[in-house]
Amino acid sequence: MSDPVRLRYRPETSEYAWTFGGVAPVRRVRPGSVLELWSEDAFGGSVRTVDDLPSRVTRFPFVNPQTGPFYVEGAEPGDTLALHLVSVEPSRSWAASATIPFFGALTSTPRGPGLQPALPERVWIYDIDRTRRTVTYHAASRDLAVELPLDPMLGTIGVAPSRGEVRSSLVPDSHGGNLDSPEVRAGVTCYFGVNVEGALFSIGDGHCRQGEGETCGVAAEAAMDVVLVVELLKGLATPWPRLESDTQVMSLGSARPLEDAFRIAQSDLVDWVAAEWRLDALDAYQLVSQAVETPVANVVDPNYTVVAKLQKRYLPAAPVYRGTHARLRALARGLG
Amino acid sequence: MSDPVRLRYRPETSEYAWTFGGVAPVRRVRPGSVLELWSEDAFGGSVRTVDDLPSRVTRFPFVNPQTGPFYVEGAEPGDTLALHLVSVEPSRSWAASATIPFFGALTSTPRGPGLQPALPERVWIYDIDRTRRTVTYHAASRDLAVELPLDPMLGTIGVAPSRGEVRSSLVPDSHGGNLDSPEVRAGVTCYFGVNVEGALFSIGDGHCRQGEGETCGVAAEAAMDVVLVVELLKGLATPWPRLESDTQVMSLGSARPLEDAFRIAQSDLVDWVAAEWRLDALDAYQLVSQAVETPVANVVDPNYTVVAKLQKRYLPAAPVYRGTHARLRALARGLG
Amino acid sequence: MSDPVRLRYRPETSEYAWTFGGVAPVRRVRPGSVLELWSEDAFGGSVRTVDDLPSRVTRFPFVNPQTGPFYVEGAEPGDTLALHLVSVEPSRSWAASATIPFFGALTSTPRGPGLQPALPERVWIYDIDRTRRTVTYHAASRDLAVELPLDPMLGTIGVAPSRGEVRSSLVPDSHGGNLDSPEVRAGVTCYFGVNVEGALFSIGDGHCRQGEGETCGVAAEAAMDVVLVVELLKGLATPWPRLESDTQVMSLGSARPLEDAFRIAQSDLVDWVAAEWRLDALDAYQLVSQAVETPVANVVDPNYTVVAKLQKRYLPAAPVYRGTHARLRALARGLG
Amino acid sequence: MSDPVRLRYRPETSEYAWTFGGVAPVRRVRPGSVLELWSEDAFGGSVRTVDDLPSRVTRFPFVNPQTGPFYVEGAEPGDTLALHLVSVEPSRSWAASATIPFFGALTSTPRGPGLQPALPERVWIYDIDRTRRTVTYHAASRDLAVELPLDPMLGTIGVAPSRGEVRSSLVPDSHGGNLDSPEVRAGVTCYFGVNVEGALFSIGDGHCRQGEGETCGVAAEAAMDVVLVVELLKGLATPWPRLESDTQVMSLGSARPLEDAFRIAQSDLVDWVAAEWRLDALDAYQLVSQAVETPVANVVDPNYTVVAKLQKRYLPAAPVYRGTHARLRALARGLG
Repeated sequence: MSDPVRLRYRPETSEYAWTFGGVAPVRRVRPGSVLELWSEDAFGGSVRTVDDLPSRVTRFPFVNPQTGPFYVEGAEPGDTLALHLVSVEPSRSWAASATIPFFGALTSTPRGPGLQPALPERVWIYDIDRTRRTVTYHAASRDLAVELPLDPMLGTIGVAPSRGEVRSSLVPDSHGGNLDSPEVRAGVTCYFGVNVEGALFSIGDGHCRQGEGETCGVAAEAAMDVVLVVELLKGLATPWPRLESDTQVMSLGSARPLEDAFRIAQSDLVDWVAAEWRLDALDAYQLVSQAVETPVANVVDPNYTVVAKLQKRYLPAAPVYRGTHARLRALARGLG
Repeated sequence: MSDPVRLRYRPETSEYAWTFGGVAPVRRVRPGSVLELWSEDAFGGSVRTVDDLPSRVTRFPFVNPQTGPFYVEGAEPGDTLALHLVSVEPSRSWAASATIPFFGALTSTPRGPGLQPALPERVWIYDIDRTRRTVTYHAASRDLAVELPLDPMLGTIGVAPSRGEVRSSLVPDSHGGNLDSPEVRAGVTCYFGVNVEGALFSIGDGHCRQGEGETCGVAAEAAMDVVLVVELLKGLATPWPRLESDTQVMSLGSARPLEDAFRIAQSDLVDWVAAEWRLDALDAYQLVSQAVETPVANVVDPNYTVVAKLQKRYLPAAPVYRGTHARLRALARGLG
Repeated sequence: MSDPVRLRYRPETSEYAWTFGGVAPVRRVRPGSVLELWSEDAFGGSVRTVDDLPSRVTRFPFVNPQTGPFYVEGAEPGDTLALHLVSVEPSRSWAASATIPFFGALTSTPRGPGLQPALPERVWIYDIDRTRRTVTYHAASRDLAVELPLDPMLGTIGVAPSRGEVRSSLVPDSHGGNLDSPEVRAGVTCYFGVNVEGALFSIGDGHCRQGEGETCGVAAEAAMDVVLVVELLKGLATPWPRLESDTQVMSLGSARPLEDAFRIAQSDLVDWVAAEWRLDALDAYQLVSQAVETPVANVVDPNYTVVAKLQKRYLPAAPVYRGTHARLRALARGLG
Repeated sequence: MSDPVRLRYRPETSEYAWTFGGVAPVRRVRPGSVLELWSEDAFGGSVRTVDDLPSRVTRFPFVNPQTGPFYVEGAEPGDTLALHLVSVEPSRSWAASATIPFFGALTSTPRGPGLQPALPERVWIYDIDRTRRTVTYHAASRDLAVELPLDPMLGTIGVAPSRGEVRSSLVPDSHGGNLDSPEVRAGVTCYFGVNVEGALFSIGDGHCRQGEGETCGVAAEAAMDVVLVVELLKGLATPWPRLESDTQVMSLGSARPLEDAFRIAQSDLVDWVAAEWRLDALDAYQLVSQAVETPVANVVDPNYTVVAKLQKRYLPAAPVYRGTHARLRALARGLG
């Protein structure tokens, strides 16, 4: 095994992509490449103090700027793209969050409208301590600081959609996109079905951490330094985004209402278990019903996202996705 | 502090309750009492082998038999009933699960009907090993046994509903009921708002474990020996069921669609955090948005249930519910 | 055919029922009886001027007072109760509507909560002109009166629920209840499956008219004089409420989310068409798909209600429900 | 007023568009132009007999071929495009419908999945009689023909989406698209907010008729001859598709779950009424609540669609959309 190709890329502001699909690739990469990327935060870096209200300093729909898309050589519809996240680290010393009028899970929104007035807009700035691995919240209404564990993740990751569609980087769906799941962290391999030649993947929307559901619609948003490995699995289809960690396999469903996101994630996991561990559908349904963990990811985006997770230790070892995760994990460890 | 009153109660078959509300109490208990109870499994104990198909051996709606209701002396509308679960242990060596026609999350149902034929009905019998703390699944379609951790819990726990309603023991709602959440395990204190004089609580539907979502609609169902302590908090209202463990506070929302269960749980937790830690609503909303864990409980019952959990260690110590959990935890340790 | 038995009944305030199920019957009636009833409005008659804010003059849950329940002799589970509405006429010269805090389709509610403040509470009083058959709206924010057609209907009608449940008169479900559909008007026969001995039906919540969806949650509420005929169809089950007019057959589904109410209504109509016109399920599905009318009834109650309607003239004549509607229609014409 | 410009256009198969957005315009047109168009049916004309199963003769996602897009000179974001449908007439003597595996409201689907097997695939061919204005259904399971009224409409009509998105012609949303509403018939003016320069509108998916909800997912699909007039309203925004007929104004909401489509349509109608008839929001909410008609349009597409309709006769005359409908109606009458 030779040294992997390494590509370093930091987009200019003019190079940001705002959609999945519909954008020319910024680079072509070969399967096996290691990418060292930087991604700007969801606000385009414009929310830096509690006075930078998003409605003033951002220009909708220019949120969630994407780093990419990358054209993966040889990728064709019917293949699976594997992206192994080697590291995801905040590149600044602070993160920003906010309440945004008519956005979030505990307010009416344009797609679930009502007649009540908007909640106030407010910004919170979090301090990041990379040594202590904390991200600190400061209340506005009293003198209270809360240290939370630093748990960096990518809110958006995905490929160009199918059917010739182009989707905003605010949307999660079967192509990935704005999944807003805390499971998308370093050490995980992400699998996406390829819909167009070259796959055209991109990443962005880094979070220093987020609660499950991203209740107010905005996480602790931060620019991120990301190292990832690109792999291509020819002739292997993946219907919905899947993740694999050292300990778990996960299916991510995105839809509305939330129970349909749940159904997608659970039935994809049932299919996966049935295929990998050679059970019939009912046996897999039963096993998943007793063993699955099901954290909500987001209930704020145009589709909501639910994760279905299974501990690999419960089951006999199986060469999931041709052993890709173990191989990329080893490669990552060798990167130094 | 004197020794608590202890009451042992094992219902006769004729004493089972099938609803929350609408049933005369089986016993009167004083706040501070320790109850040693037994509850039959969801199938009334009638599914014992893989040939005992539920559609043949149970008579709908006679599922989820309740042990209770218990009349708590002094309980009035506007109070909170606290039930501390000291222990929940399977009372037999096996548990049963099944797929039931037109029941579960991955099938059409009478309330989400379609024209497709039913899935096959099948029973799985699990072995319980209380020493090794395992519950073992056996596949029907191949020779595979899977050891899962034993994690006993109560599927149903709650009080009589408000508005003079009587609800089936299949229904979760603001009165508790069929919450089907794995968080309802030993070591946890459950808080319920009292709707009628005496509160009239009951328990049942023990699970040796269940996946989050209870996807096929049936957990590893088992009769349970349960020890719990009853406490009453006068003049303190609780709008939706809440749980407290040594490490977490939790709100449970039950509704359809699933996003409304999510909204109930999240907004109740926001209210709770705002009240206990004296933050304004927006500050609490922000903090919960970054810190909350949100496992799905069930997506199969007449209402779906979502849990919103917060680590207590993130926040300064606060005398949640007047310190009830710590006090009952200590009492439980002293029971021997 | 002898003259039908006629029963006149006007409840005292103390006789109102607030639930379906759980209440002793006020009268026993024989199938074939004609009932001349009066029902109070949803507010218990307490909202009479624009200054009578419901939050002040009503005492929740004491809304939707029911006239009944009536015990129908011979009715048993598995039978169908037919109620033919001969006339539904407002008994006063005015009707009342309102916006109520955290109630209605365009606001957050306790079961779909958020953090926004409540909409203002406001009362509108409508003038009823029975000669011109109008009900007149008066704007508060400008000098505008709008004459709308008088179209009296019953918001609540139904029987005791199954499974031993007792449901608030605010709830629509398979037992009927708070369906809030404008289709429940004079000239229509309503069919309900009987769940308990005597059926125990009641009526209430008269509306001088309502929009489809009852968007703000409150119609033009009015006390009503109601004449209806009671009929019993032995050994004939009805899974969800159905209506028959001179021109249409209708199925009413109640559930959340709204698409499940739609699915219930459509699949019940498909089943009905397949049974009455001897088509297989796919043929009935296809025909309904092209011919059905589907007005929304309510999107504000604990369950939402959708109506699926089919013109009878599209199909060969069939003795729907044993010809009950035609027979009761003739009887009604003979009442004078 | 001079004679309007008339443009006749019939696309070649190679010219079909399959998305809204992302396609170069086939023609440029001036506001005021009359277009005489032809659109192929949803199946691309390939389902002609009961043996032409869609899964065999169509190639997903190549359904709902669009005629267009048309670039409207002068159209810019913030304007409103008005399309007045002068006539919509089937161009062949038959129409086709079908059940399609895992598609429709009464089956599991890829976005609401389960484990049940698919419903059978079946085709129905309808006879069109343009003289008698009927479209005739033939049952497969017995000898029954049902004459239904011919009521031709366009399933898809809309403009390029906002945010740089490209959406499949199967999707309805704020840009219009696959609304699948029977209200989109001859005599109606459709209003769409313009999102991109030139608006880029297209039409397609003709139905000889459909039930409200399009329950099985497929209407009586037919190629159509369409005459329409294009008008542009500068500086007037339209948030969601609106329709105006001689008698009614209508708002169309598209979303999931269905109650959110309802909320969008109702709140848009409330806003419209408040603006045109100068009522405050609560007064408009109240009036709409009593007067609105709310037919479901579709419960089968990626978003579901609900219509909120108000009789114009209820209200004082108002120059809705600057009197566009009356003007285009007059123009249409003059076309001969």
